Parts: sequence; structure tokens; C-alpha cells
Amino acid sequence: MITLKDAIYLEKIDEVKRILEENPPLIDEVDEDGVLMALLAAKTGNLNLVRYIVEYSRASMNITDKNQKNMLHYAAMSGNVATCKYLVERVGLSPLSGDINLLTPYEIAHENKFFDLEEYFQEETGAPLEKMYHNPIRTGMYPDPSIVRVGEDYYMVNSSFIYYPCIPVSTSKDLIHWKIIGYAITNPEWAGLQHLEGGRGYWAPDISYYKGRFYITATYRLNDDGTVYRKQIVVSSDRPEGPYSKPAVIDEDGIDPSIFNDDDGRRYMLLNRGARIFELNEDATAQISKASLLYYGDQKRAPEGPHLLKKDGYYYLFEAEGGTGPGHRITVSRSRELMGRYEPCPYNPIMRQTDEKAIIQRCGHGKPVQTQNGEWYMVYLCGRKIGDGYSILGRETALDKITWTADGWPVVNNLDGPSAMQIKPDLPETVWESSYFDDFDGEYLSTDWMFPRVPEPDGVLLQDSHVKIKGSCADLDSMGARNILLRRQQHFKFTAVCKMKMPQLYPGQDAGMTCYYDENTFVKFGVFATQEPQPRLIVKAVEVIGEQVKESGSIELDFRRQDVYLKIETNDLKRTCYMSYDGKEYIKVAVLENVYYLCDEGLKKGKRFTGAMIGMYAYAGDFGSRYVDEYGRHGDDTLYVDFDWFDYQPEK
Amino acid sequence: MITLKDAIYLEKIDEVKRILEENPPLIDEVDEDGVLMALLAAKTGNLNLVRYIVEYSRASMNITDKNQKNMLHYAAMSGNVATCKYLVERVGLSPLSGDINLLTPYEIAHENKFFDLEEYFQEETGAPLEKMYHNPIRTGMYPDPSIVRVGEDYYMVNSSFIYYPCIPVSTSKDLIHWKIIGYAITNPEWAGLQHLEGGRGYWAPDISYYKGRFYITATYRLNDDGTVYRKQIVVSSDRPEGPYSKPAVIDEDGIDPSIFNDDDGRRYMLLNRGARIFELNEDATAQISKASLLYYGDQKRAPEGPHLLKKDGYYYLFEAEGGTGPGHRITVSRSRELMGRYEPCPYNPIMRQTDEKAIIQRCGHGKPVQTQNGEWYMVYLCGRKIGDGYSILGRETALDKITWTADGWPVVNNLDGPSAMQIKPDLPETVWESSYFDDFDGEYLSTDWMFPRVPEPDGVLLQDSHVKIKGSCADLDSMGARNILLRRQQHFKFTAVCKMKMPQLYPGQDAGMTCYYDENTFVKFGVFATQEPQPRLIVKAVEVIGEQVKESGSIELDFRRQDVYLKIETNDLKRTCYMSYDGKEYIKVAVLENVYYLCDEGLKKGKRFTGAMIGMYAYAGDFGSRYVDEYGRHGDDTLYVDFDWFDYQPEK
Repeated sequence: MITLKDAIYLEKIDEVKRILEENPPLIDEVDEDGVLMALLAAKTGNLNLVRYIVEYSRASMNITDKNQKNMLHYAAMSGNVATCKYLVERVGLSPLSGDINLLTPYEIAHENKFFDLEEYFQEETGAPLEKMYHNPIRTGMYPDPSIVRVGEDYYMVNSSFIYYPCIPVSTSKDLIHWKIIGYAITNPEWAGLQHLEGGRGYWAPDISYYKGRFYITATYRLNDDGTVYRKQIVVSSDRPEGPYSKPAVIDEDGIDPSIFNDDDGRRYMLLNRGARIFELNEDATAQISKASLLYYGDQKRAPEGPHLLKKDGYYYLFEAEGGTGPGHRITVSRSRELMGRYEPCPYNPIMRQTDEKAIIQRCGHGKPVQTQNGEWYMVYLCGRKIGDGYSILGRETALDKITWTADGWPVVNNLDGPSAMQIKPDLPETVWESSYFDDFDGEYLSTDWMFPRVPEPDGVLLQDSHVKIKGSCADLDSMGARNILLRRQQHFKFTAVCKMKMPQLYPGQDAGMTCYYDENTFVKFGVFATQEPQPRLIVKAVEVIGEQVKESGSIELDFRRQDVYLKIETNDLKRTCYMSYDGKEYIKVAVLENVYYLCDEGLKKGKRFTGAMIGMYAYAGDFGSRYVDEYGRHGDDTLYVDFDWFDYQPEK
Repeated sequence: MITLKDAIYLEKIDEVKRILEENPPLIDEVDEDGVLMALLAAKTGNLNLVRYIVEYSRASMNITDKNQKNMLHYAAMSGNVATCKYLVERVGLSPLSGDINLLTPYEIAHENKFFDLEEYFQEETGAPLEKMYHNPIRTGMYPDPSIVRVGEDYYMVNSSFIYYPCIPVSTSKDLIHWKIIGYAITNPEWAGLQHLEGGRGYWAPDISYYKGRFYITATYRLNDDGTVYRKQIVVSSDRPEGPYSKPAVIDEDGIDPSIFNDDDGRRYMLLNRGARIFELNEDATAQISKASLLYYGDQKRAPEGPHLLKKDGYYYLFEAEGGTGPGHRITVSRSRELMGRYEPCPYNPIMRQTDEKAIIQRCGHGKPVQTQNGEWYMVYLCGRKIGDGYSILGRETALDKITWTADGWPVVNNLDGPSAMQIKPDLPETVWESSYFDDFDGEYLSTDWMFPRVPEPDGVLLQDSHVKIKGSCADLDSMGARNILLRRQQHFKFTAVCKMKMPQLYPGQDAGMTCYYDENTFVKFGVFATQEPQPRLIVKAVEVIGEQVKESGSIELDFRRQDVYLKIETNDLKRTCYMSYDGKEYIKVAVLENVYYLCDEGLKKGKRFTGAMIGMYAYAGDFGSRYVDEYGRHGDDTLYVDFDWFDYQPEK
């Protein structure tokens, strides 16, 4: 007797029918790779076979394989236009549906050079592939996006938590390609981060423009040990990149402030819970009325992120609801009068991921922007997970189009949830130079680098085409750690390499690379000086997971060599650590099988809302201060470790 | 130190603030009844206190107590209009939100005689309480509703599975009050139910009207042991109550057929998977074209229940999707041409319950109807559960209004999911006589009674104001059981009583009441004849749960008495069984703590889609046929058990 799988492979439709009539549940079986029978049928491209399965078998058409490839992904592999057309037009599958790597049927057609199919998909989607973009538009930790357009330039701010400089300001010409041009707070004395635990600091900023000035407001989130743990700050500048004014503090509880400038010249701040509002003075530095509730929200769980937009005689009130997890969403309500009664949009939520299995999840917290061409877009946060679990990249920024319904409501991406792939805005494409490789040749550090809390004034120096990191007296597990130079992890799979001058370390000191979440959870992969059993340098990896410390790999280093190269390969939650003396021949030092603790979900402690970072550190220990060792050496033998370059390369 | 609870009770707002500033999570605590602090605050009616909790505490405003009473239910108990107004207008809570018993804040105001508050709610909702109805409009097993209007009369059909007569036809003048007027199949020879397992039989019928005749189509669902297990039947009549024609069989696989009559006079049948279509002949008795897929569906899991509606140049295609469980929903798509490409509605699903905690769940499978006044309504199925678990009432019928968006899409109840309470349609109210008490005085059995499968021709007789039930040769655990007289359980809490003449039983025979799901799971509460240790009659309860049989209670009966009264009190899943000789003094016989097995979810076996029933039975055993006992008595001493009346009384 022929099996169902073989009957499908051989496209013996009569056999497939006979088998399924006798035993309908067989359609739910999988092949040796775990692929459902219906998907295998789609892969044949045989229209009659696919029709039979769609119309008469028990298979539902929302099925996917473990990589989220659906019936159309599989049919696209066959190149059969008629079968793909049937799945698009009668079954309703989209050529732009993304698998776990955001790969779409459209791209499968292109990659396989199925020109007819690619042409059909182009007709169907309305644009050639090169006019498409993928979400998220900004990968890695870019949560809580807020946006403003001035002329033909777009500016975005994102949360930075305890990272310094505080609150990155980015720009774009096309809404797709962004670069950081400055920060809202760059003066160390204004940052106020030194005593804040990981995950506190500057939350959910908003950027707006008023009479020639850029205004940025954010919540300053303190630790939980007092009775006041949230305040709002406002800074402004006539240049988007700054420098910005000293933060004005507005002592009103809440999070997610935004500034709304009404037509009559009056200025307001909105903030949660729900959408509360109060009036600001002319320069937005002081609260001049009591806060009151405009509208709590449509879903009524954790309503936040309020933004007001005035359009066509309505005040449109956007909110993020449901909490910044799987239930996250954007809702809107409107009123004819600012302080009037707000009517919720019947189409709420206007953005939400309803497919629990899709890669792009927890979509919400967005702000609309109108292009110079009159089109509308929403930037919003999203999160991608590894399996069912870990969102190691933190919360990222996605973009989708807003359209207005006939009855005047804004809806995002036609209410289809987040796009995996979509047509680019009709704006001049402007691609900024990639910053994945940094040779530290410039006068200033690239704006992609940041620090947990404020570094020492002489903590990081750019000299002789190197970055010199001063050893921190406090170790990375302390809020006192300084000068940790980090960049966002922006991909699930990437390789990071740095070239470090052989460090001159006293016993107890170490330096190298770090995969960092916060002071509670991080990896050090570096050169450690030890004097047991005798003074020597070793390379090893140390994982710190709350109270737990795990060490792995221990290779003695030839300290007479000039350089040491450290390399970390990242594949989802697995990291493999290598070292080399010449950057060519690498030795495997350690394999960290599961760095789940670099994710929000990896530890229950405090606030975990950021994302994984990677970078360089140097730890001087007590030698960094007043310690005198047995050889009479003083702590003011300040440790500096020199890094020649740092290379971050996503997997192609 | 004062506790938060006391500070709330005493309305000491400063104390509440102080306590919550020091320890914000305290707001999530509950009182001794499990009621959250925010709800207690609402119950005070103190506006300032409520405002503080809403705007500054961590409480979300979607909270409820264990009975699904929300902030507005609690505030309504205070009668404070300002606080209720704030919760309605700023927080967005609805006076029509239902608790677990569907009780609304509006009704709380009324019951407590808070006239000002009731007036405000009337203003807010647009109608006085007497103009309101509750969902479900039809309680107990009324699943898969289909509806048609002819003139000013509405007709509905529902699934009947293995119950006979098959497919109830009901009528209404106001869309709220319904009565069964007939059945689609009443001829025992046409029913074809005898060999079908519980849950098979007639599924998901549709009623339509064409050139002066009513057409009913349904799926005839066979057992799983052949290669054909689904066919479609069509019957017709010029009178809605029937009799209907002999079923024409259409041998096309699928479920949920409906008939669509196009403007050009051509007739079609739609059925799943998705929405497939084929043409019918003029009298709808034969398929005259091959089936083909119009549109699979928007959500693409278990798409079924297709209905077409032509309006304003569009073919609107309604489908039920997501499976008839918690993911159930109604979606719509449309096309300018019948066989054209169907565009899904951007507002899909147009009906879905998204609140997992609400009492009305699994909403879907509906059909639209236009009233003679031009308004549109949707009848659809829903299910209510006890706790998180058991939908003992089966799937019921609910009603909500359809409105059409400015861009021409139908949406149900403003996309708010099912109503707990809503304004009645603008139709002449017509209340039918209640059928809760049946004295069996009539010439015919009330249409509320039915049988699992077809009874014997002399199985149930109406004589002398009694119903006489002939003892079945097969017991209730067999598909061969006959003459089981049942009505729907329509309430979670009710009392059923019957008055039975003292039965003349041989050992091994029994008769009485039954709580029935199907041949696999039921309760017998009756009089049992036994001869061990000596011949006698006892009253007891027997629970049959698949292979498992549990007996409880065993009271010897004085067989010289004339009557025995049996009473079962139902409180959710608990049943208490009583007996009496005079209908006044009752003796408790047995307590069945958990009859979960009378629910769809109570056993994994076959198809369980119906709902619990209650009624009367008589079991003759082998005495009913050819058995001759030791006394030479023949089986043709036919057992008849006489019941004087049956009373079903929902808890007030």
C-alpha cells in the first residue's frame, strides 16, 4: 500500500483521495522533517492536488511548518503560477507573509528565478521586490518609537533606560533607513543614571517640533525605594542633533509623556495612566494645570503611550494598551473638542498581532506621522522571539502605513497586524553608511556606542586609531561599573570580533568582550590575569546569571604576543567564543549553549525592558583605586586597554 | 496603621495615597471575598477616590470580581451618578456590560431604585430597561441558527443532531421571542437516525424562501466507519411549519450547506470547506454543477457556515471560522461578481468574543436578516460556560444588530463582540406562551419535546391527560434505547419535577427522570425494581460516564402508594435528587456533586456538540420483548409508565 506521503510526492490524486476518505486524520501527519502533508502537497505545485486538499481535506489553511512557512511559501518553491494564484485569490494567502526569518513567497519566487511567478506576485502586491522593505525597520533595542517630520526630514527618539548618552535621536529621509545623530542628554551631570538599577532611567520619550525648536520629553524612572519613582523631563534644542537644554523636571507621576501643541498656541503634556492631560507653559518646562483624564483606553489594561493628533476637526488620541507583551496593541479614540468625550474607534485595536505563531509579536506603542506627500505612517514597537521564549533583541521599531477609513478613522496596515514585508513609502531612498565595522579612527565615538550609566571623564579615549578603555574599579555585576562600551545586538545570528592589544594586567584584572544585559546578567569573554598557581593570562568566558556564576574555557595566553583577537559567534541563544593571535587562526575557547539570561525573560529581577548588547570592557578592580599590592605597586597604575577595532557582522 | 481596605471603606483618600505611594502593588490585593481593592473603591461611589485609583494606581480598568462584575457594576451599587458618569465617559465602561449572570450596571441601578442613575444610563444607552433584551435570545441547545424573514414573520432553524423530530423550525415576530412550530423531518422513515451515534445526524441547517416555498437544507452526518460520512439534504414546504417534502440527498462532501437564490433565478448551494458553491436545479433537489471554491476564509482555520447575501451590487459572503470553540468568529468578504474574487472585510472578524473571561463565549456561525423596517440583525451561536470549563447548555442562539460601515461592510454590534444586553429590535413585541410546565393535556406533544433517535410508533402515547412512555428494550447506554422523552436544559439553575404513577415493574426494569447527554453519558433518577434480597422498588440515581457507572441513594419505595414525584434541583454542575409521594414532602435521595459529563467537554468520545437534556424514560429490559421469566410471564406484558405532568422551572 502506498503511503499518503508517497501518493502526494508522486501526485497520485486518486490515491490521495482514497487514503483520505478512508482515514481523514492522516492529513495531519508530518514527514520526517515535521512538515505537514498539506504543505508537501503545495510543494508539488499540482493545482488539482492542492485544490483537493484545500476543499475536501481536514487541513486548515493557516498551517505552517516549524519555520512559519505556509502553503504559499511551499507552493512558491514549485514555481507553479496557477497553484500560487489559487492560493492567493481563493484561499487568501499573501505573497508578503513572512516566515520565521521574514522570508516571503515573493522572495522565494525571486531567489529561485521563477520569473513568471515573481511577475504575478509583483502584479498582486503592486511593487517590484526592490521597492519593498522588511519589518522591523530598526532591529535591536529601539523601543517606544516617537517620530516627527520637519520638512523632508524625519526624526525619531527611542527609550534608552540606563544607557548613556540618553535617548538617541535618529534621522531618516525615507522612513526606512535611520541613523543616530545625537542624544537628548549628553551632559554627564544631567543624566542622573549612576544610582539607577538596570531597566530604569529614561523611558518612552517623545519628540515634537514647535516654533523652530525640537522638544523631547521622557519619563525619568527611579528605583522603587522611595515614594516618588517617576517624573517627567523636557529638553529642547533648535537643532535635532542637539545639544539639548538642561532637563526641566515636571513632577507628575506617570509614564510615556508626549507634547501636544494645539492650534490655539496652547501646549499640553499627555501621559498615562490612560491618556491624562495637563497644560504646559510656553517653553514646555512647567506644568500649569492639574492633570485630568481624557480617556482611559479602549481595552483598559495598562493603557499608556498617549499621543494626540488634530486632523479634520477631530482630536485623535492614540494609546498603547495591553502591556508591552503578547497582548500589546494600539487603539485610537477621537473627540471634536480637546477636553470633550472621546469615542473609541470601532476598529480597535488598529494595530495588533493576532497570529500567536508569527515572528513579529507584541506590537504597540506607536506614533503617526504624515509624509510631505500626504501619506500617513505609524512607527511602533514590536518584538521578535526565539521559539516561544526569548526576545533577545529587545523591542524593535516597525513601520506600517496608516489609511483613513471612509468614516474618518486611522487604521494601520489595513488592520492586518504588522507587515513582514511591505512597499516602501514614496520617499527618496537614502541609505546611511553602515556602522557595523568600527576602526576607531575618528575624532568621536560613533553614535552607535553607548554605556550603561555615565562613563568616567577619562573612561574612554580615542587615540592612535584605537579606543582606550579605562579599567573600572567596580566589576560588571555592580551598578558602579564604568566605561563599558556597548552596541545593540541587532540580529539573531551574527559574529562579533575585536582586536585588542595584549593587555598589561595585574592579577584580578580582566578585559575583553562582553555580552551584556544589565548588572544582573551578562557574559564576559576576555583575558583574565591570575596568580594561581603562578602569574599568567588566561582567556575564558564567565557567565553571570543573578547569583549564579559559570566559567568555561580556560586557555593560557602567550603574553609576549602583541595582539589578541576575540570573536563571538552568535546563533540564537548559543554563543561560541574564539581567540586568535593573528586574526586568521582561531582557537575555540568556550561554547555557551544558552544565554537566555541576556533576554527580558531570562531573570525575574527589577525591570527588564531592554535587549542584549555586545561590546568591550576592562576591569581594573582595586588596582584601579587606592590598592597597593605586595610589590608596592599603586592603584594609580591606571589600567587602559586598547582596542584597535570592533567588527559586528550579521549572518548573510 | 490603617489598612488599604479600611482607608478605602472610610474614604480616606490621603491615607489611600500614602499607602499606595509606599507600596503600589497593594492595589492588587483582595478582601476576604476575593474582591480587588479598586472594586471596593468603586463601591464607595466616591469620585475623588475612584479618580485617584484610575489615574494613579496600578489597577487596570478591565478588572472584575469572580462574578465578572466590573468597576461600573460596583460603582452602580453606590448609586453615585458622577462616579458612574466618570467611569462611563472617561474610562469607557458600558452600562450594558454583563456579569456572569448577564446582570448589567443598568439593572443594578434599577433594582436598587437609584432613579437618577437609571435615568443617566437610559440617556446613555438610548432606551429604557423594558426595551432591552439579554443574550442569548434562545437558551439551551439552539446551535447554528439560520434565519429567514417572510413578510413580518421570522423563521429560524437549528441543528438537532440525533434528536427527533429533526431540525426544529421556530418562528418569531420580534426576533427575541421564539417558539418551535414544526420540524423539517417528522416522518420516521425519512429520519435515518437509528444507527447514528450521539452527536451525528442533522447538522447546521439553513432555511430560505423561494417562490412561495420554504427550503431547509442540512448536513446529514453519518458515523465515521465508512468512506462517505457527510451528505446534504434538502426539504421544502409551502408552509413554514411543514410538513416538508421527503429529503432530497445531494451527495457532495462538506458541512453547513445553505441555499442562495441569485437575482437571475439561478439557485446555488454553498457549503464548507471555506465557501464552496455549486448550482442546484429549480426545486433544489439536485446538484447540477461541480463544486468550486469561492473563498476559503479570512482566518483560515475551520472555515464553515457560508451564507451569501446580495446587496447594493455586492455578493457578501459570511463565514464562521476558528472552530466552534473559543476561537469562533464570523468573517465576511465580498465580490462584485458571484464567481469573482472575494475581498476580505478589513474589519474581520465582524463578530468575535475577545474577552476570555466574559460569560458569552465561542460566538460565530451566524446569518444576517433584514427586518421589514430596513434594519439588519445577525443571529449567531454562542456558548456560556460554568467557570472555565463546562458549557452544559450546549450552544445557544444570540442576536445582535448589524450596521453597515461607510465603505459598505456589515459589522455586528459595532464590533464589540456579543451583547450581554441590548436594545430590542423595533418590531412588535410578541411573547409566546411559556412551555415550562406541561400537563400533557393536549392532543399532541408540545414541540419542545424530542427524542434521541426515532421512538417506537406506540412508544409515547397521550392519554387521559398523561403521557404514557413505553419501556425500551434497550437501556439508555445503547443506541437502541427508545422513547426517551427529553427537553432542553436551558438554565444553569433550575428545578425539574415530574409526577409519575407508581410504576408496575418487573425486576430489572426502571423508569423515571433522566439528565441526558447521549448514550455515553447520562443520569437516571428513577424507580428501580429489584429482587435481591427480595422483590422491591427502590429510588436511586445512576450516573453513566462512558464505561464508568456510579450509583447513589437507595430508598425503598412503598409500592402501594399511588404516585411518586421525582424532583431534581440543578445548580450549575450539582444536582440534588428528591422524591415524594404527595408532591409536598420531599425526601433527599442523592446528591450528584459534579455532572460535568453532561457537557460537550465531559468525555472524549465521538462528536459532542449538543447540550444537556432533561426528561423521562422507561426501561423494560428483556421483559419488553421475548423474555419469559420464572413465573411464566411473557415479555409482551408491555411496560408503560404514566407521567401526569412535567415541570421545568428556572431559578428566579
